[in-house]
Amino acid sequence: MAMNKQIVLDSRPSEKVSPANFRSAEAPVPRAGEGEIVVRQHYLSLDPYMRGRLSDAKSYAKPQEIGAVMGGGAVGEVVESKNAKFKPGDFVVGMGGWQQFALSDGAGWNVVDAKSIPLSAYLGVVGMPGVTAWYGLNEIIAPKPGETVLVSAASGAVGGVVGQLAKLKGAKVVGVAGGAEKCGYVTGQLGFDACVDHKSARFAEEMKAALPDGIDGVFENVGGEPFLQALRRLNDFARIAICGLIASYEAAPTALPDMRIFLVRRIRIEGFIVSDHLKIWPKALAEVGGLVASGKLKYRETVREGLDAAPQALVDLLHGGNFGKMLVKLV
Amino acid sequence: MAMNKQIVLDSRPSEKVSPANFRSAEAPVPRAGEGEIVVRQHYLSLDPYMRGRLSDAKSYAKPQEIGAVMGGGAVGEVVESKNAKFKPGDFVVGMGGWQQFALSDGAGWNVVDAKSIPLSAYLGVVGMPGVTAWYGLNEIIAPKPGETVLVSAASGAVGGVVGQLAKLKGAKVVGVAGGAEKCGYVTGQLGFDACVDHKSARFAEEMKAALPDGIDGVFENVGGEPFLQALRRLNDFARIAICGLIASYEAAPTALPDMRIFLVRRIRIEGFIVSDHLKIWPKALAEVGGLVASGKLKYRETVREGLDAAPQALVDLLHGGNFGKMLVKLV
Repeated sequence: MAMNKQIVLDSRPSEKVSPANFRSAEAPVPRAGEGEIVVRQHYLSLDPYMRGRLSDAKSYAKPQEIGAVMGGGAVGEVVESKNAKFKPGDFVVGMGGWQQFALSDGAGWNVVDAKSIPLSAYLGVVGMPGVTAWYGLNEIIAPKPGETVLVSAASGAVGGVVGQLAKLKGAKVVGVAGGAEKCGYVTGQLGFDACVDHKSARFAEEMKAALPDGIDGVFENVGGEPFLQALRRLNDFARIAICGLIASYEAAPTALPDMRIFLVRRIRIEGFIVSDHLKIWPKALAEVGGLVASGKLKYRETVREGLDAAPQALVDLLHGGNFGKMLVKLV
Repeated sequence: MAMNKQIVLDSRPSEKVSPANFRSAEAPVPRAGEGEIVVRQHYLSLDPYMRGRLSDAKSYAKPQEIGAVMGGGAVGEVVESKNAKFKPGDFVVGMGGWQQFALSDGAGWNVVDAKSIPLSAYLGVVGMPGVTAWYGLNEIIAPKPGETVLVSAASGAVGGVVGQLAKLKGAKVVGVAGGAEKCGYVTGQLGFDACVDHKSARFAEEMKAALPDGIDGVFENVGGEPFLQALRRLNDFARIAICGLIASYEAAPTALPDMRIFLVRRIRIEGFIVSDHLKIWPKALAEVGGLVASGKLKYRETVREGLDAAPQALVDLLHGGNFGKMLVKLV
């Protein structure tokens, strides 16, 4: 009998997640019942929000169940369909989880065009991360031409899109990334105006030098000390979109030390989760997809090989070990 | 020669402001030059923002100059006019400062109707504090019917208006105030649904009990521990308008201990200063003025007598010694 390799959550991490929190499992390759599809998965998506799901603390995402296949986005090919919306050979994106084959009633799965855009991109720039970038930039920061936007995790799946979209809107864009190689990519390939290395011993001075006109918008993916330095450079009426705080997911919380900045600078800070805003997905995907297809929006992927690589890929993602979108390739 | 008694700032407070930071002065009663008016001031306005102006730290308000007449809002009567927009006998509101007579070219002064609304109200409910309440409630919190709005300093010049306007919009309104007398006024006279005494030893439990449906909007005037308790009761998508942080003006800053609340709850926090939004003043004043004239909007004043009372009145205001709008009566 053909088997479906899977990875399940075995225990909740006490502080830092490790591959030991997961274990391998297998089950027969599923067969489609009435209304169902079976997807052979090609790529798994690794995303920072997954860390929150490993805890049972209250969060925006429902906790991942112990003993169940680890949830997550995936792209693949329909290999069996008893659902009129799908046919074998369709390339699809959906929440397939960490396994080789996914069984679904089709809810949440969408057929994608894998000819003009590579399949893996539907997990990144033309998927949830791309829509996340679009929403936070357009609906929260809404930069005017000439304003300065700061983007943390600037070489990442979300940050890279934020900066390129902001440039297209006429903003000046400064990134923050970890290390010279990522910073070089952010300015050289993605076209940011500047990028500051948060690992530099002179980070605070370099932030000041890179931001001569201050900051009008912050797209925050990281938190921690770099965020506190960004607060020092805010202009009046700055908008801060809180998309993630990855520096605090396995370390001390990021605190805002003095609320008076809200008055002194009349700033606005707004947290968001892109799944709350399903209405804007088609518009955002159409815009981002068009830019990718025409080569105007660049992106980069870190691809790990094989299902068993998924746990370590997640750990690495949480500590900056990715360069662009983190993926696991299954096929 | 008729003299104009004045109070000038003599020194900057190191931490807590005291009357010793001010001194009396006098000058001849001014005469109007071409285009100018002389106003005999009836009431001075005492406002929390004044504390920020006494420091030379960067803030939204320009620091008060040492040796100059202390700035501030006032209402009075035009006694001499060489400006076509004003005539003797006009009642006016403007930034007259802490003195008996103000000389001005008319900029920033407005004639008011002191027949249908008492003159002093133009420094409170039908003035800057009322517009402040209107802006933060309508433009930031924008409560829907049935939502719960929390208002700190609920018996104050701003908070009292916020709560009454929110009730008129169909929200459930819970106040926070200092002491049983103020709380009794907030529920009994202003019509709030509940009021929690922040001086109570059981404050946290009382907040929980008063907020069975959580909080959808916060109008924050105070900061400090009561604000941190409010954060614990936020609903998803709550909006927080930061109007003031009076608890921190002469004490430790109010910190936001964990930015992750922005993600877990998808909240929005926005600081504002009403003078940034001059366009909405006419609309806000028309609405609030109509409600005051028809008796639908209630307010309360603490009136101190004589110019020399101003410094202590400011000190008392900063520590909750007022009950409603704090004023100094000169005439």
